[in-house]
Amino acid sequence: MTTGVEQVTIIGVGLLGASFGLALKKRTRIKRIVGVGRSEASLEVALERGAIDEAVLDVKAGVSQADVVCIATPAATVVSMLNAAVAAAPSHTIFFDMASTKQAICDHASAAYPAPRRFVGCHPMAGGEKYGAAHAHPDLFAGMVCLVEDDNTIDAQVRERVCALWQAVEARVVSVDAAAHDALLAHTSHAPHIVAAAVAQIAADAGATQDFVGNGFRDVTRIAASRPELWRDICMENRTALCYSLKEMKRHIAAVESLLENKDAAGLQAFFESAVAARRRILES
Amino acid sequence: MTTGVEQVTIIGVGLLGASFGLALKKRTRIKRIVGVGRSEASLEVALERGAIDEAVLDVKAGVSQADVVCIATPAATVVSMLNAAVAAAPSHTIFFDMASTKQAICDHASAAYPAPRRFVGCHPMAGGEKYGAAHAHPDLFAGMVCLVEDDNTIDAQVRERVCALWQAVEARVVSVDAAAHDALLAHTSHAPHIVAAAVAQIAADAGATQDFVGNGFRDVTRIAASRPELWRDICMENRTALCYSLKEMKRHIAAVESLLENKDAAGLQAFFESAVAARRRILES
Repeated sequence: MTTGVEQVTIIGVGLLGASFGLALKKRTRIKRIVGVGRSEASLEVALERGAIDEAVLDVKAGVSQADVVCIATPAATVVSMLNAAVAAAPSHTIFFDMASTKQAICDHASAAYPAPRRFVGCHPMAGGEKYGAAHAHPDLFAGMVCLVEDDNTIDAQVRERVCALWQAVEARVVSVDAAAHDALLAHTSHAPHIVAAAVAQIAADAGATQDFVGNGFRDVTRIAASRPELWRDICMENRTALCYSLKEMKRHIAAVESLLENKDAAGLQAFFESAVAARRRILES
Repeated sequence: MTTGVEQVTIIGVGLLGASFGLALKKRTRIKRIVGVGRSEASLEVALERGAIDEAVLDVKAGVSQADVVCIATPAATVVSMLNAAVAAAPSHTIFFDMASTKQAICDHASAAYPAPRRFVGCHPMAGGEKYGAAHAHPDLFAGMVCLVEDDNTIDAQVRERVCALWQAVEARVVSVDAAAHDALLAHTSHAPHIVAAAVAQIAADAGATQDFVGNGFRDVTRIAASRPELWRDICMENRTALCYSLKEMKRHIAAVESLLENKDAAGLQAFFESAVAARRRILES
Protein backbone atom coordinates (compact mmCIF):
# COMPACT_ATOMS: atom_id res chain seq x y z
CA MET A 1 0.00 0.00 0.00
CA THR A 2 3.03 2.27 0.16
CA THR A 3 4.14 1.09 -3.28
CA GLY A 4 5.80 3.82 -5.31
CA VAL A 5 6.67 5.88 -2.27
CA GLU A 6 10.43 6.32 -2.25
CA GLN A 7 10.73 9.39 -0.06
CA VAL A 8 8.57 10.73 2.74
CA THR A 9 9.41 14.16 4.09
CA ILE A 10 8.23 14.95 7.62
CA ILE A 11 8.10 18.64 8.43
CA GLY A 12 8.34 19.01 12.21
CA VAL A 13 10.12 16.25 14.13
CA GLY A 14 8.36 16.50 17.50
CA LEU A 15 6.46 13.68 19.18
CA LEU A 16 4.04 13.09 16.30
CA GLY A 17 6.43 13.64 13.39
CA ALA A 18 9.23 11.53 14.83
CA SER A 19 6.78 8.79 15.87
CA PHE A 20 5.41 8.71 12.32
CA GLY A 21 8.97 8.27 11.03
CA LEU A 22 9.64 5.44 13.48
CA ALA A 23 6.31 3.81 12.63
CA LEU A 24 7.04 3.90 8.87
CA LYS A 25 10.54 2.48 9.51
CA LYS A 26 9.08 -0.36 11.53
CA ARG A 27 6.22 -1.23 9.21
CA THR A 28 7.04 -0.26 5.62
CA ARG A 29 9.91 -0.48 3.14
CA ILE A 30 9.95 3.23 2.40
CA LYS A 31 13.56 3.97 1.51
CA ARG A 32 14.15 7.48 2.68
CA ILE A 33 12.60 9.60 5.39
CA VAL A 34 13.69 13.21 5.41
CA GLY A 35 13.08 15.34 8.48
CA VAL A 36 12.68 19.11 8.29
CA GLY A 37 13.10 20.96 11.58
CA ARG A 38 13.53 24.46 12.95
CA SER A 39 16.57 23.59 15.04
CA GLU A 40 19.56 21.31 14.59
CA ALA A 41 19.06 20.09 18.14
CA SER A 42 15.60 18.61 17.51
CA LEU A 43 16.73 17.11 14.18
CA GLU A 44 19.70 15.56 15.95
CA VAL A 45 17.39 13.78 18.42
CA ALA A 46 15.18 12.51 15.56
CA LEU A 47 18.26 11.20 13.71
CA GLU A 48 19.61 9.51 16.84
CA ARG A 49 16.23 7.87 17.49
CA GLY A 50 16.24 6.55 13.91
CA ALA A 51 13.02 8.40 13.05
CA ILE A 52 14.57 10.06 9.98
CA ASP A 53 17.43 9.23 7.62
CA GLU A 54 18.31 12.76 6.71
CA ALA A 55 17.93 16.12 8.44
CA VAL A 56 17.26 19.38 6.65
CA LEU A 57 16.63 22.88 7.98
CA ASP A 58 15.16 24.24 4.74
CA VAL A 59 11.62 23.21 3.73
CA LYS A 60 12.25 23.65 -0.02
CA ALA A 61 15.33 21.42 0.04
CA GLY A 62 13.50 18.89 2.18
CA VAL A 63 10.51 18.43 -0.13
CA SER A 64 12.15 18.77 -3.57
CA GLN A 65 12.19 14.98 -4.07
CA ALA A 66 9.36 13.97 -1.75
CA ASP A 67 6.59 11.64 -2.86
CA VAL A 68 4.74 12.29 0.38
CA VAL A 69 4.94 15.39 2.60
CA CYS A 70 3.70 15.03 6.15
CA ILE A 71 3.30 18.32 7.99
CA ALA A 72 3.65 17.61 11.71
CA THR A 73 4.05 21.16 12.99
CA PRO A 74 1.67 22.92 15.42
CA ALA A 75 -1.68 24.04 13.99
CA ALA A 76 -0.72 27.70 13.61
CA THR A 77 2.17 26.99 11.21
CA VAL A 78 0.61 24.28 9.03
CA VAL A 79 -0.71 26.68 6.38
CA SER A 80 2.62 28.46 5.84
CA MET A 81 4.50 25.13 5.81
CA LEU A 82 2.00 23.70 3.33
CA ASN A 83 2.31 26.71 1.02
CA ALA A 84 6.11 26.48 1.10
CA ALA A 85 6.05 22.73 0.52
CA VAL A 86 3.51 22.84 -2.35
CA ALA A 87 5.62 25.49 -4.10
CA ALA A 88 8.80 23.40 -3.92
CA ALA A 89 7.60 19.79 -4.28
CA PRO A 90 7.15 17.78 -7.50
CA SER A 91 3.70 17.75 -9.09
CA HIS A 92 2.97 14.13 -8.10
CA THR A 93 3.56 14.78 -4.37
CA ILE A 94 0.74 14.23 -1.88
CA PHE A 95 0.37 16.26 1.32
CA PHE A 96 -1.27 15.81 4.69
CA ASP A 97 -0.97 17.33 8.15
CA MET A 98 -1.44 16.11 11.73
CA ALA A 99 -2.74 19.20 13.51
CA SER A 100 -5.40 19.19 16.21
CA THR A 101 -7.61 21.71 14.40
CA LYS A 102 -8.83 21.28 10.86
CA GLN A 103 -11.26 23.88 9.58
CA ALA A 104 -8.94 26.85 8.96
CA ILE A 105 -6.28 24.59 7.43
CA CYS A 106 -8.69 22.69 5.19
CA ASP A 107 -10.57 25.85 4.16
CA HIS A 108 -7.24 27.35 3.12
CA ALA A 109 -6.37 24.26 1.08
CA SER A 110 -9.76 24.32 -0.68
CA ALA A 111 -9.41 28.01 -1.50
CA ALA A 112 -5.72 28.14 -2.40
CA TYR A 113 -5.24 25.04 -4.54
CA PRO A 114 -6.97 23.94 -7.73
CA ALA A 115 -9.46 21.11 -7.33
CA PRO A 116 -8.99 18.26 -6.97
CA ARG A 117 -6.47 19.19 -4.29
CA ARG A 118 -3.61 16.98 -3.21
CA PHE A 119 -3.71 17.97 0.49
CA VAL A 120 -5.74 15.99 3.05
CA GLY A 121 -6.34 17.27 6.58
CA CYS A 122 -5.60 14.61 9.21
CA HIS A 123 -5.72 14.44 13.00
CA PRO A 124 -4.29 11.36 14.67
CA MET A 125 -5.84 10.94 18.13
CA ALA A 126 -2.52 10.11 19.71
CA GLY A 127 -0.04 11.91 21.88
CA GLY A 128 -0.38 13.27 25.37
CA GLU A 129 1.33 15.63 27.74
CA LYS A 130 4.82 14.50 26.66
CA TYR A 131 6.39 16.08 23.63
CA GLY A 132 9.53 16.07 21.52
CA ALA A 133 11.29 13.41 19.44
CA ALA A 134 12.82 12.04 22.64
CA HIS A 135 9.39 10.57 23.54
CA ALA A 136 8.64 9.32 20.01
CA HIS A 137 7.44 5.74 19.69
CA PRO A 138 6.95 3.48 16.64
CA ASP A 139 3.64 2.23 18.07
CA LEU A 140 2.20 5.64 18.95
CA PHE A 141 -0.52 5.36 16.28
CA ALA A 142 -1.15 1.63 16.52
CA GLY A 143 -4.77 0.96 17.38
CA MET A 144 -5.49 4.70 17.60
CA VAL A 145 -8.02 6.61 15.52
CA CYS A 146 -6.85 8.98 12.81
CA LEU A 147 -9.52 11.45 11.77
CA VAL A 148 -9.17 12.07 8.02
CA GLU A 149 -10.91 14.94 6.27
CA ASP A 150 -13.51 14.01 3.70
CA ASP A 151 -14.41 16.73 1.21
CA ASN A 152 -15.34 16.79 -2.48
CA THR A 153 -12.46 19.16 -3.28
CA ILE A 154 -9.94 16.42 -2.44
CA ASP A 155 -8.42 14.16 -5.13
CA ALA A 156 -9.97 10.78 -4.32
CA GLN A 157 -6.83 8.82 -5.18
CA VAL A 158 -4.68 11.10 -3.05
CA ARG A 159 -7.05 10.63 -0.15
CA GLU A 160 -6.94 6.85 -0.59
CA ARG A 161 -3.14 6.91 -0.49
CA VAL A 162 -3.08 9.07 2.64
CA CYS A 163 -5.52 6.67 4.32
CA ALA A 164 -3.28 3.77 3.26
CA LEU A 165 -0.30 5.45 4.97
CA TRP A 166 -2.26 5.77 8.21
CA GLN A 167 -3.33 2.17 7.92
CA ALA A 168 0.31 1.22 7.35
CA VAL A 169 1.16 2.61 10.81
CA GLU A 170 -1.86 0.69 12.16
CA ALA A 171 -4.12 3.66 12.79
CA ARG A 172 -7.86 3.26 12.28
CA VAL A 173 -9.11 5.81 9.74
CA VAL A 174 -12.33 7.67 10.53
CA SER A 175 -13.68 10.14 7.97
CA VAL A 176 -14.72 13.56 9.18
CA ASP A 177 -15.89 16.94 7.93
CA ALA A 178 -13.41 19.65 8.94
CA ALA A 179 -15.96 22.00 10.52
CA ALA A 180 -17.68 19.17 12.43
CA HIS A 181 -14.25 18.02 13.58
CA ASP A 182 -13.44 21.38 15.16
CA ALA A 183 -16.85 21.71 16.81
CA LEU A 184 -16.56 18.26 18.38
CA LEU A 185 -12.91 18.57 19.39
CA ALA A 186 -13.68 21.87 21.14
CA HIS A 187 -15.93 19.82 23.43
CA THR A 188 -13.82 16.67 23.80
CA SER A 189 -10.34 18.18 23.92
CA HIS A 190 -9.89 21.95 23.81
CA ALA A 191 -12.39 23.08 26.47
CA PRO A 192 -11.35 20.17 28.76
CA HIS A 193 -7.80 21.45 28.46
CA ILE A 194 -8.89 24.91 29.63
CA VAL A 195 -10.79 23.57 32.62
CA ALA A 196 -7.93 21.22 33.54
CA ALA A 197 -5.57 24.19 33.56
CA ALA A 198 -8.03 26.21 35.65
CA VAL A 199 -8.38 23.35 38.17
CA ALA A 200 -4.61 23.27 38.66
CA GLN A 201 -4.43 27.05 38.98
CA ILE A 202 -7.28 27.37 41.47
CA ALA A 203 -5.91 24.57 43.67
CA ALA A 204 -2.41 26.04 43.69
CA ASP A 205 -3.73 29.53 44.43
CA ALA A 206 -5.59 28.10 47.43
CA GLY A 207 -2.34 26.67 48.77
CA ALA A 208 -2.97 23.00 48.00
CA THR A 209 0.00 20.69 48.41
CA GLN A 210 0.33 17.11 47.21
CA ASP A 211 -1.03 15.92 50.57
CA PHE A 212 -4.41 17.31 49.56
CA VAL A 213 -4.70 15.87 46.07
CA GLY A 214 -5.78 12.38 45.09
CA ASN A 215 -5.71 10.41 41.88
CA GLY A 216 -8.78 12.30 40.68
CA PHE A 217 -6.89 15.59 40.69
CA ARG A 218 -3.90 13.99 38.95
CA ASP A 219 -6.14 12.54 36.24
CA VAL A 220 -8.19 15.70 35.71
CA THR A 221 -5.14 17.95 35.46
CA ARG A 222 -2.80 15.64 33.54
CA ILE A 223 -3.37 17.37 30.20
CA ALA A 224 -2.68 20.71 31.88
CA ALA A 225 0.98 19.64 31.93
CA SER A 226 1.10 19.82 28.12
CA ARG A 227 3.10 22.29 26.08
CA PRO A 228 1.70 25.84 26.45
CA GLU A 229 2.65 27.08 22.94
CA LEU A 230 0.99 24.08 21.33
CA TRP A 231 -2.28 24.62 23.18
CA ARG A 232 -2.20 28.36 22.70
CA ASP A 233 -2.16 27.72 18.95
CA ILE A 234 -4.85 25.03 19.01
CA CYS A 235 -7.19 27.18 21.09
CA MET A 236 -6.61 30.31 19.03
CA GLU A 237 -7.20 28.39 15.78
CA ASN A 238 -10.46 26.99 17.10
CA ARG A 239 -11.56 29.96 19.17
CA THR A 240 -15.13 30.25 17.88
CA ALA A 241 -16.06 26.64 18.63
CA LEU A 242 -14.06 26.76 21.84
CA CYS A 243 -15.89 29.85 23.09
CA TYR A 244 -19.19 28.08 22.47
CA SER A 245 -17.98 25.05 24.43
CA LEU A 246 -16.78 27.24 27.31
CA LYS A 247 -20.18 28.94 27.46
CA GLU A 248 -21.77 25.49 27.73
CA MET A 249 -19.37 24.67 30.55
CA LYS A 250 -20.31 27.85 32.44
CA ARG A 251 -23.99 27.04 31.91
CA HIS A 252 -23.58 23.57 33.43
CA ILE A 253 -21.56 24.93 36.36
CA ALA A 254 -24.21 27.58 37.02
CA ALA A 255 -26.88 24.87 36.98
CA VAL A 256 -24.97 22.90 39.62
CA GLU A 257 -24.56 26.05 41.72
CA SER A 258 -28.35 26.44 41.67
CA LEU A 259 -28.82 22.82 42.74
CA LEU A 260 -26.38 23.33 45.63
CA GLU A 261 -27.94 26.62 46.71
CA ASN A 262 -31.40 25.06 46.64
CA LYS A 263 -30.14 21.94 48.45
CA ASP A 264 -31.61 19.94 45.58
CA ALA A 265 -29.96 16.60 46.32
CA ALA A 266 -32.16 14.70 43.86
CA GLY A 267 -31.27 17.17 41.10
CA LEU A 268 -27.57 16.83 41.86
CA GLN A 269 -27.80 13.05 41.79
CA ALA A 270 -29.55 13.27 38.41
CA PHE A 271 -26.73 15.50 37.14
CA PHE A 272 -24.10 12.92 38.16
CA GLU A 273 -26.14 9.98 36.87
CA SER A 274 -26.59 11.65 33.53
CA ALA A 275 -22.82 12.27 33.33
CA VAL A 276 -21.99 8.65 34.14
CA ALA A 277 -24.34 7.55 31.35
CA ALA A 278 -22.96 10.20 28.99
CA ARG A 279 -19.36 9.06 29.49
CA ARG A 280 -20.33 5.42 29.03
CA ARG A 281 -22.29 6.28 25.87
CA ILE A 282 -19.23 7.94 24.37
CA LEU A 283 -16.64 5.35 25.36
CA GLU A 284 -18.83 2.39 24.39
CA SER A 285 -20.07 3.92 21.14
CA MET B 1 0.74 -0.06 68.06
CA THR B 2 -2.55 -1.92 67.88
CA THR B 3 -1.90 -3.45 71.32
CA GLY B 4 -5.05 -3.87 73.35
CA VAL B 5 -7.29 -3.78 70.31
CA GLU B 6 -9.23 -7.02 70.24
CA GLN B 7 -12.14 -5.99 68.07
CA VAL B 8 -12.49 -3.43 65.31
CA THR B 9 -15.96 -2.77 63.98
CA ILE B 10 -16.21 -1.33 60.49
CA ILE B 11 -19.53 0.32 59.70
CA GLY B 12 -19.96 0.31 55.93
CA VAL B 13 -18.20 -2.42 53.96
CA GLY B 14 -17.72 -0.67 50.63
CA LEU B 15 -14.37 -0.09 48.94
CA LEU B 16 -12.83 1.86 51.84
CA GLY B 17 -14.28 -0.13 54.72
CA ALA B 18 -13.53 -3.54 53.23
CA SER B 19 -10.03 -2.42 52.21
CA PHE B 20 -9.38 -1.25 55.76
CA GLY B 21 -10.43 -4.69 57.01
CA LEU B 22 -8.14 -6.44 54.51
CA ALA B 23 -5.28 -4.08 55.40
CA LEU B 24 -5.67 -4.77 59.15
CA LYS B 25 -5.81 -8.52 58.46
CA LYS B 26 -2.61 -8.36 56.44
CA ARG B 27 -0.64 -6.12 58.79
CA THR B 28 -1.87 -6.51 62.37
CA ARG B 29 -2.83 -9.24 64.82
CA ILE B 30 -6.24 -7.79 65.59
CA LYS B 31 -8.39 -10.78 66.46
CA ARG B 32 -11.82 -9.85 65.31
CA ILE B 33 -13.11 -7.54 62.63
CA VAL B 34 -16.86 -7.05 62.61
CA GLY B 35 -18.55 -5.57 59.57
CA VAL B 36 -21.82 -3.68 59.78
CA GLY B 37 -23.70 -3.24 56.52
CA ARG B 38 -27.08 -2.20 55.18
CA SER B 39 -27.54 -5.31 53.07
CA GLU B 40 -26.66 -8.95 53.45
CA ALA B 41 -25.37 -8.96 49.90
CA SER B 42 -22.60 -6.40 50.55
CA LEU B 43 -21.69 -8.09 53.85
CA GLU B 44 -21.48 -11.42 52.04
CA VAL B 45 -18.93 -10.01 49.58
CA ALA B 46 -16.86 -8.55 52.45
CA LEU B 47 -16.93 -11.92 54.25
CA GLU B 48 -15.95 -13.79 51.09
CA ARG B 49 -13.07 -11.40 50.47
CA GLY B 50 -11.86 -11.99 54.03
CA ALA B 51 -12.22 -8.31 54.95
CA ILE B 52 -14.37 -9.09 58.00
CA ASP B 53 -14.76 -12.06 60.33
CA GLU B 54 -18.35 -11.44 61.26
CA ALA B 55 -21.24 -9.68 59.58
CA VAL B 56 -23.95 -7.77 61.41
CA LEU B 57 -26.89 -5.75 60.11
CA ASP B 58 -27.50 -3.89 63.37
CA VAL B 59 -25.12 -1.09 64.42
CA LYS B 60 -25.77 -1.54 68.14
CA ALA B 61 -25.00 -5.25 68.05
CA GLY B 62 -21.93 -4.59 65.89
CA VAL B 63 -20.28 -2.09 68.22
CA SER B 64 -21.26 -3.49 71.65
CA GLN B 65 -17.84 -5.10 72.14
CA ALA B 66 -15.75 -2.90 69.85
CA ASP B 67 -12.47 -1.32 70.95
CA VAL B 68 -12.33 0.66 67.73
CA VAL B 69 -15.23 1.78 65.54
CA CYS B 70 -14.42 2.83 61.98
CA ILE B 71 -17.28 4.56 60.18
CA ALA B 72 -16.78 4.02 56.47
CA THR B 73 -20.18 5.11 55.20
CA PRO B 74 -20.83 8.04 52.82
CA ALA B 75 -20.46 11.54 54.31
CA ALA B 76 -24.17 12.16 54.71
CA THR B 77 -24.72 9.20 57.04
CA VAL B 78 -21.60 9.47 59.23
CA VAL B 79 -23.25 11.63 61.91
CA SER B 80 -26.22 9.32 62.44
CA MET B 81 -23.97 6.23 62.43
CA LEU B 82 -21.63 7.89 64.91
CA ASN B 83 -24.48 8.80 67.24
CA ALA B 84 -25.83 5.26 67.13
CA ALA B 85 -22.38 3.76 67.68
CA VAL B 86 -21.43 6.07 70.57
CA ALA B 87 -24.71 5.21 72.32
CA ALA B 88 -24.10 1.47 72.09
CA ALA B 89 -20.32 1.06 72.42
CA PRO B 90 -18.31 0.60 75.64
CA SER B 91 -16.85 3.73 77.26
CA HIS B 92 -13.27 2.91 76.24
CA THR B 93 -14.08 2.68 72.51
CA ILE B 94 -12.46 5.06 70.04
CA PHE B 95 -14.18 6.26 66.86
CA PHE B 96 -13.08 7.63 63.51
CA ASP B 97 -14.61 8.04 60.06
CA MET B 98 -13.32 8.03 56.49
CA ALA B 99 -15.61 10.51 54.75
CA SER B 100 -14.50 12.99 52.08
CA THR B 101 -15.88 15.99 53.94
CA LYS B 102 -14.98 16.88 57.49
CA GLN B 103 -16.36 20.16 58.82
CA ALA B 104 -20.02 19.25 59.44
CA ILE B 105 -19.06 15.88 60.91
CA CYS B 106 -16.32 17.24 63.18
CA ASP B 107 -18.42 20.24 64.25
CA HIS B 108 -21.14 17.81 65.26
CA ALA B 109 -18.69 15.71 67.28
CA SER B 110 -17.35 18.79 69.08
CA ALA B 111 -20.84 19.99 69.93
CA ALA B 112 -22.48 16.68 70.78
CA TYR B 113 -19.85 14.92 72.86
CA PRO B 114 -18.13 15.98 76.07
CA ALA B 115 -14.51 17.11 75.66
CA PRO B 116 -12.09 15.51 75.29
CA ARG B 117 -14.01 13.65 72.59
CA ARG B 118 -13.17 10.15 71.44
CA PHE B 119 -14.05 10.69 67.75
CA VAL B 120 -11.42 11.77 65.21
CA GLY B 121 -12.33 12.89 61.70
CA CYS B 122 -10.23 11.17 59.04
CA HIS B 123 -10.06 11.25 55.25
CA PRO B 124 -7.82 8.72 53.53
CA MET B 125 -6.82 10.02 50.09
CA ALA B 126 -7.42 6.67 48.45
CA GLY B 127 -10.10 5.18 46.27
CA GLY B 128 -11.22 6.10 42.81
CA GLU B 129 -14.11 5.53 40.45
CA LYS B 130 -14.46 1.90 41.50
CA TYR B 131 -16.54 1.05 44.52
CA GLY B 132 -17.81 -1.85 46.58
CA ALA B 133 -16.12 -4.58 48.62
CA ALA B 134 -15.49 -6.49 45.39
CA HIS B 135 -12.78 -3.96 44.53
CA ALA B 136 -11.29 -3.82 48.04
CA HIS B 137 -7.54 -4.22 48.35
CA PRO B 138 -5.27 -4.73 51.39
CA ASP B 139 -2.77 -2.21 49.98
CA LEU B 140 -5.29 0.52 49.14
CA PHE B 141 -3.93 2.83 51.82
CA ALA B 142 -0.25 1.89 51.56
CA GLY B 143 1.84 4.92 50.75
CA MET B 144 -1.26 7.13 50.57
CA VAL B 145 -1.97 10.19 52.68
CA CYS B 146 -4.59 10.04 55.40
CA LEU B 147 -5.75 13.49 56.49
CA VAL B 148 -6.46 13.36 60.23
CA GLU B 149 -8.34 16.11 62.03
CA ASP B 150 -6.40 18.04 64.64
CA ASP B 151 -8.51 19.95 67.17
CA ASN B 152 -8.20 20.77 70.86
CA THR B 153 -11.52 19.12 71.66
CA ILE B 154 -10.07 15.69 70.75
CA ASP B 155 -8.63 13.34 73.39
CA ALA B 156 -4.90 13.37 72.59
CA GLN B 157 -4.40 9.70 73.39
CA VAL B 158 -7.37 8.70 71.25
CA ARG B 159 -5.97 10.72 68.37
CA GLU B 160 -2.58 9.04 68.78
CA ARG B 161 -4.18 5.61 68.64
CA VAL B 162 -6.19 6.50 65.52
CA CYS B 163 -3.01 7.77 63.86
CA ALA B 164 -1.28 4.51 64.85
CA LEU B 165 -4.04 2.52 63.13
CA TRP B 166 -3.54 4.48 59.93
CA GLN B 167 0.18 3.97 60.18
CA ALA B 168 -0.45 0.26 60.70
CA VAL B 169 -2.07 0.11 57.26
CA GLU B 170 0.92 2.08 55.93
CA ALA B 171 -0.87 5.38 55.35
CA ARG B 172 1.03 8.62 55.89
CA VAL B 173 -0.77 10.76 58.46
CA VAL B 174 -1.14 14.48 57.72
CA SER B 175 -2.82 16.70 60.33
CA VAL B 176 -5.51 19.07 59.17
CA ASP B 177 -8.11 21.50 60.46
CA ALA B 178 -11.62 20.38 59.44
CA ALA B 179 -12.69 23.69 57.88
CA ALA B 180 -9.41 24.12 55.99
CA HIS B 181 -9.80 20.53 54.78
CA ASP B 182 -13.20 21.20 53.23
CA ALA B 183 -12.09 24.47 51.62
CA LEU B 184 -9.07 22.80 50.01
CA LEU B 185 -10.87 19.62 48.95
CA ALA B 186 -13.56 21.69 47.25
CA HIS B 187 -10.79 22.94 44.95
CA THR B 188 -8.79 19.72 44.54
CA SER B 189 -11.61 17.17 44.40
CA HIS B 190 -15.22 18.31 44.55
CA ALA B 191 -15.24 21.10 41.93
CA PRO B 192 -13.03 18.99 39.60
CA HIS B 193 -15.67 16.26 39.89
CA ILE B 194 -18.38 18.70 38.76
CA VAL B 195 -16.38 19.92 35.75
CA ALA B 196 -15.43 16.36 34.80
CA ALA B 197 -19.11 15.43 34.80
CA ALA B 198 -19.95 18.53 32.75
CA VAL B 199 -17.22 17.71 30.20
CA ALA B 200 -18.71 14.23 29.69
CA GLN B 201 -22.24 15.63 29.41
CA ILE B 202 -21.37 18.39 26.94
CA ALA B 203 -19.41 16.02 24.70
CA ALA B 204 -22.19 13.43 24.67
CA ASP B 205 -24.84 16.08 23.99
CA ALA B 206 -22.79 17.23 20.99
CA GLY B 207 -22.83 13.69 19.61
CA ALA B 208 -19.22 12.74 20.34
CA THR B 209 -18.35 9.08 19.88
CA GLN B 210 -15.23 7.30 21.04
CA ASP B 211 -13.60 8.09 17.68
CA PHE B 212 -13.47 11.73 18.72
CA VAL B 213 -12.00 11.39 22.19
CA GLY B 214 -8.37 10.91 23.13
CA ASN B 215 -6.57 10.00 26.31
CA GLY B 216 -7.01 13.58 27.55
CA PHE B 217 -10.80 13.18 27.57
CA ARG B 218 -10.56 9.79 29.27
CA ASP B 219 -8.29 11.20 31.98
CA VAL B 220 -10.32 14.36 32.57
CA THR B 221 -13.62 12.51 32.81
CA ARG B 222 -12.47 9.38 34.69
CA ILE B 223 -13.78 10.60 38.05
CA ALA B 224 -17.12 11.35 36.41
CA ALA B 225 -17.65 7.57 36.31
CA SER B 226 -17.84 7.48 40.13
CA ARG B 227 -20.90 6.66 42.16
CA PRO B 228 -23.56 9.38 41.85
CA GLU B 229 -25.05 8.99 45.37
CA LEU B 230 -21.62 9.25 46.96
CA TRP B 231 -20.78 12.46 45.13
CA ARG B 232 -24.23 13.91 45.66
CA ASP B 233 -23.62 13.57 49.41
CA ILE B 234 -20.07 14.92 49.34
CA CYS B 235 -21.08 17.96 47.30
CA MET B 236 -24.16 18.68 49.41
CA GLU B 237 -22.14 18.38 52.64
CA ASN B 238 -19.55 20.81 51.33
CA ARG B 239 -21.81 23.07 49.31
CA THR B 240 -20.58 26.43 50.64
CA ALA B 241 -16.90 25.79 49.85
CA LEU B 242 -17.88 24.07 46.62
CA CYS B 243 -19.95 27.02 45.42
CA TYR B 244 -16.98 29.29 46.06
CA SER B 245 -14.72 26.97 44.05
CA LEU B 246 -17.23 26.82 41.18
CA LYS B 247 -17.37 30.61 41.09
CA GLU B 248 -13.58 30.66 40.78
CA MET B 249 -13.85 28.16 37.93
CA LYS B 250 -16.37 30.35 36.09
CA ARG B 251 -14.11 33.37 36.63
CA HIS B 252 -11.13 31.58 35.06
CA ILE B 253 -13.24 30.34 32.14
CA ALA B 254 -14.55 33.86 31.53
CA ALA B 255 -10.97 35.18 31.56
CA VAL B 256 -10.01 32.66 28.87
CA GLU B 257 -13.06 33.61 26.82
CA SER B 258 -11.85 37.23 26.89
CA LEU B 259 -8.38 36.17 25.78
CA LEU B 260 -9.88 34.21 22.88
CA GLU B 261 -12.25 37.00 21.86
CA ASN B 262 -9.39 39.52 21.94
CA LYS B 263 -7.08 37.09 20.07
CA ASP B 264 -4.63 37.59 22.93
CA ALA B 265 -2.27 34.69 22.13
CA ALA B 266 0.39 35.87 24.59
CA GLY B 267 -2.18 36.08 27.37
CA LEU B 268 -3.43 32.57 26.57
CA GLN B 269 0.11 31.21 26.59
CA ALA B 270 0.67 32.86 29.99
CA PHE B 271 -2.52 31.18 31.27
CA PHE B 272 -1.27 27.75 30.20
CA GLU B 273 2.28 28.37 31.46
CA SER B 274 0.96 29.42 34.84
CA ALA B 275 -1.16 26.26 35.02
CA VAL B 276 1.80 24.02 34.16
CA ALA B 277 3.79 25.67 36.95
CA ALA B 278 0.83 25.47 39.36
CA ARG B 279 0.38 21.74 38.79
CA ARG B 280 4.10 21.11 39.22
CA ARG B 281 4.15 23.21 42.40
CA ILE B 282 1.39 21.08 43.91
CA LEU B 283 2.69 17.67 42.86
CA GLU B 284 6.28 18.45 43.82
CA SER B 285 5.41 20.15 47.11
